[in-house]
Amino acid sequence: MNFPAAPEITAAAWLNVDVPLSMQALQGNVVMLHAFQMLCPACVSQATPQAAAVAECFAGDDFQLIGLHTVFEHHSVMTPDALRVYAAEFRLQFPIAIDQPAENGPVPVTMAKLGLQGTPSTVLVDRAGNIRFSHFGTLSDMQLGAMVGQLLSM
Amino acid sequence: MNFPAAPEITAAAWLNVDVPLSMQALQGNVVMLHAFQMLCPACVSQATPQAAAVAECFAGDDFQLIGLHTVFEHHSVMTPDALRVYAAEFRLQFPIAIDQPAENGPVPVTMAKLGLQGTPSTVLVDRAGNIRFSHFGTLSDMQLGAMVGQLLSM
Amino acid sequence: MNFPAAPEITAAAWLNVDVPLSMQALQGNVVMLHAFQMLCPACVSQATPQAAAVAECFAGDDFQLIGLHTVFEHHSVMTPDALRVYAAEFRLQFPIAIDQPAENGPVPVTMAKLGLQGTPSTVLVDRAGNIRFSHFGTLSDMQLGAMVGQLLSM
Amino acid sequence: MNFPAAPEITAAAWLNVDVPLSMQALQGNVVMLHAFQMLCPACVSQATPQAAAVAECFAGDDFQLIGLHTVFEHHSVMTPDALRVYAAEFRLQFPIAIDQPAENGPVPVTMAKLGLQGTPSTVLVDRAGNIRFSHFGTLSDMQLGAMVGQLLSM
Repeated sequence: MNFPAAPEITAAAWLNVDVPLSMQALQGNVVMLHAFQMLCPACVSQATPQAAAVAECFAGDDFQLIGLHTVFEHHSVMTPDALRVYAAEFRLQFPIAIDQPAENGPVPVTMAKLGLQGTPSTVLVDRAGNIRFSHFGTLSDMQLGAMVGQLLSM
Repeated sequence: MNFPAAPEITAAAWLNVDVPLSMQALQGNVVMLHAFQMLCPACVSQATPQAAAVAECFAGDDFQLIGLHTVFEHHSVMTPDALRVYAAEFRLQFPIAIDQPAENGPVPVTMAKLGLQGTPSTVLVDRAGNIRFSHFGTLSDMQLGAMVGQLLSM
Repeated sequence: MNFPAAPEITAAAWLNVDVPLSMQALQGNVVMLHAFQMLCPACVSQATPQAAAVAECFAGDDFQLIGLHTVFEHHSVMTPDALRVYAAEFRLQFPIAIDQPAENGPVPVTMAKLGLQGTPSTVLVDRAGNIRFSHFGTLSDMQLGAMVGQLLSM
Repeated sequence: MNFPAAPEITAAAWLNVDVPLSMQALQGNVVMLHAFQMLCPACVSQATPQAAAVAECFAGDDFQLIGLHTVFEHHSVMTPDALRVYAAEFRLQFPIAIDQPAENGPVPVTMAKLGLQGTPSTVLVDRAGNIRFSHFGTLSDMQLGAMVGQLLSM
């Protein structure tokens, strides 16, 4: 079976890192992309705290969580400044890329490259840099833990 | 015992009502003021959903819930437009007053009149229009239900 | 409106008290009867922990919680000895009456006097010793807190 | 690294299966042993519902959950009959072995062979029939999902 290569993240800015992360440089690790919007209820109440819990659960492993702020609606209020306040107040400590706005249309660049349908979305990338799972909506802790565990043991 | 009269709300704008609410006109009802900020984690995850549950629990009673958006920090991103998006996305259906910004200083007018220390805060007003309870922080459903129940039977 | 007087509890034995409680002696207090069975899932997971929380919430008030072990099925395994182990392991600290088995039929005496349909059931008794509320099934913390609060302020 | 072979279960009786399960016959599958007691609070409220969720999460995989009722205290009330009522009332549908009481002492035979310290305990067995993980206490859904996922991909 062939799996598609994960595209690089095209970010307008990064939070919580000194240097932008690159999928290329992360090869050898399992990567989880957590696509969210700061005013998406299922993100705020479920998927974002769960993403932070995944990062904690797999802290000692070859694992990297990357938040991806994919604003595709209400652009005027979910600004980079607003996101910085949100991330600080909600104590998000994982790396977050602000997805690059598109030149035309509401969907930002990386979200389009990944073909995501909305937020929250979860993308799991294997050690070889290929996308093994992409899901729009929420997941149980057990399902998500199982998939990350499986990818780590490959 | 004497209880202080609840001051009128000084609002820059109202959401979810056609006509601004007045404490004077609400006399005869028990009123709960839910002071919150849209980017306050304990509000978003606990106190605001709880406030909505209080409104539902006492829907048939002489009870009125009023949300009060008391922005005292990060004013540039918790704007009225941002609040409207937040309220719509999180499906808040109760009346919300946007507290009037102060001419000087970060604390808005009604928050100052009520002497609130932060968000979330809960203020309970009896049928006579007097403040019986004012609390900064979260409360259990049982405590809050008990206090509203007691005020309703007075 | 007339409310029925709460009957006395007919107990085979009591746990967690030195002297049996009497509804007569408890007049002046609001009394909550928590009818349960030790192998009833909705009791174990919801209603019994909630009953303990009610007792804690109203600890300083004129309030008394009484557990009532109303075994109406599987009598051979929900014995007094089994209940004592259950109460100890689950750290139940409120007074518990073991409802007196009937001479004929599975429904014990106090359960029959109260007309309860199953477990969990909640019966609220006002300060005058009258039944104000009787409910088979679970309740939200807010509803239950509100009702106890209302009865306490009467 | 060498891992110890999982011993066969020595059962006084089985619930929810027509034929006793054997570790030998289950080779090729990942097996999770959930050691519990029906009156152990952390089992009833957390570990047993979680075990059922694991079985559901990995239903299509080479995975087998086995409950192990390891009564090491209060033997007179946690009898096979009482367990049958408990399993029926709490709708436990996975195979359950009633651990064989020891000829001497309170700890039953399989519990002793596995060296378990109490309930709840979780034992994970790989496809080759070797014990990879043994834990006394509770686990998060994410941790447990991750470990089962890892073992399934080996």
